[in-house]
Amino acid sequence: MSLVIVGSMAFDEIDSPFGNSGRVIGGSATYSSISASYFASDIKVVSVVGEDFPEDAMAMLREKNINLEGVDIKKGRKSFFWHGRYHNDLNSRDTLVTELNVLGDFNPVLPESFKNTDFLFLGNLSPDVQLSVIAQTTKRPKLVAMDTMNFWMDIALDALKNTLKEIDLLIINDEEARQLSGQYSLVKAARLIREMGPKFLIIKKGEHGALLFHKDEIFFAPALPLEEVFDPTGAGDTFAGGFMGYIAHTGDITFENMKRAVIYGSAAASFCVEKFGTKRLEELTGPEITERVQKFVKLVDFKV
Amino acid sequence: MSLVIVGSMAFDEIDSPFGNSGRVIGGSATYSSISASYFASDIKVVSVVGEDFPEDAMAMLREKNINLEGVDIKKGRKSFFWHGRYHNDLNSRDTLVTELNVLGDFNPVLPESFKNTDFLFLGNLSPDVQLSVIAQTTKRPKLVAMDTMNFWMDIALDALKNTLKEIDLLIINDEEARQLSGQYSLVKAARLIREMGPKFLIIKKGEHGALLFHKDEIFFAPALPLEEVFDPTGAGDTFAGGFMGYIAHTGDITFENMKRAVIYGSAAASFCVEKFGTKRLEELTGPEITERVQKFVKLVDFKV
Repeated sequence: MSLVIVGSMAFDEIDSPFGNSGRVIGGSATYSSISASYFASDIKVVSVVGEDFPEDAMAMLREKNINLEGVDIKKGRKSFFWHGRYHNDLNSRDTLVTELNVLGDFNPVLPESFKNTDFLFLGNLSPDVQLSVIAQTTKRPKLVAMDTMNFWMDIALDALKNTLKEIDLLIINDEEARQLSGQYSLVKAARLIREMGPKFLIIKKGEHGALLFHKDEIFFAPALPLEEVFDPTGAGDTFAGGFMGYIAHTGDITFENMKRAVIYGSAAASFCVEKFGTKRLEELTGPEITERVQKFVKLVDFKV
Repeated sequence: MSLVIVGSMAFDEIDSPFGNSGRVIGGSATYSSISASYFASDIKVVSVVGEDFPEDAMAMLREKNINLEGVDIKKGRKSFFWHGRYHNDLNSRDTLVTELNVLGDFNPVLPESFKNTDFLFLGNLSPDVQLSVIAQTTKRPKLVAMDTMNFWMDIALDALKNTLKEIDLLIINDEEARQLSGQYSLVKAARLIREMGPKFLIIKKGEHGALLFHKDEIFFAPALPLEEVFDPTGAGDTFAGGFMGYIAHTGDITFENMKRAVIYGSAAASFCVEKFGTKRLEELTGPEITERVQKFVKLVDFKV
């Protein structure tokens, strides 16, 4: 089934204890669409880039069967750019440079053929922009999922709450869940957030795994314990893309199937952090994903 | 099979966002022996208390079939006392008062009938004292497990490394594993620590669960997502006690069985934090534990 992903396509530059990445491609739509492409075959991206966005990156995405008709290339302008530096533990980072460029006035427009999508994923954008995308769909998607961040809770909480009423699944991290709910306990936070609208909630805990909430049910997926995290940039978007790709592939939004989707998303994310930027993700193979998913199975397997 | 637990028996006073506990009983041997008593029937404790340690607490332990022959009651002296205050997140705490009292010169002596124990758990004590206990056994226990803390890494690292050579299982938290190994990655930390001696390693991550390492195998047990953590004091000792109790009950030290023991230990710990001190643990029932273990089964259950 079809999946529309709306989000940023950008340049990143990453300083980590392992060196400097140079200028690499990034952005939520880039990471999540590549990740989704390993599971689903009908993926459409809505984004905006400048004239500087490399044609070979566009070609790489097209080769993965990602439909780029919704990517607006702004003549004479520059793509969003982010430069960050990770601390030694790779768990925290400082932003050195943010140049919004074309993302500053991004007003996503769904091409006609995108409007009846089965599934919709809204990457981290202003809540008003996210809402405007939902309004453009001509039939209600089976599942509308979105990401957001602390920034929007600080400056646009009312708009965010409005948008939350219109979605089915929110995917955020633990810190964001605590800020949005005002609760430290994630169980309490999850209840309050689901009262704001989304029936499903995923709370990502980075190296500590992810929690999926629905009604009275909780599923916990661990993160794979890794020898080395090389570059965590994009891991959250890769998780979300893998999750949505698996859901779009199966067309099944039961809790049981979402649990599998969380595992597939986690497996994809565990590859993402192995190299700078999208490098490791781009070269992934199906058998590698299957093998990694088996590691998740083994990691938590016990009989009582 | 028999289990000898060596550790502190003490008074605690806890300030938490939920109030003040008053003077309650605590200590590693107290928590771990109560927890172990729900799984194993032949538990022997070696500890030291002052004349002030309450007789009704001793009676409560005896009622749980815990053999207290190895508890030295020092006439005219006072028990170890710790007073701590938890921060609002209940994840960090400050020590307000530490009075070593009888624990300052604790020199554990195994009674004759304790010396051929099948299993041995050494709570957090000076590494030299832990080593002296191992030396008193007359046959090698099937499994010698121990806890330690940053304090001993700071002031007695060589002694600690000596003791690590003589044990089979080390149970520490993530911060301690990172300090002991000098590695941030827990996978790398685990390899280095196991090269120091223990074939098995458990790294506790508090609300993020626990990892069991052996050879090339890793098992991850989540912590149960809780509505409310009331008082985390003793949760680590309760985990270790439940783990060792289950191992002593089954007599089986395969990796497969240790995975189950980690789950049972985690289940016991999830009760411990529900009330101040040992209160919730003391009143536990078998059916409650079984029910909680089923929650762990469900929490991580998925089919791919």
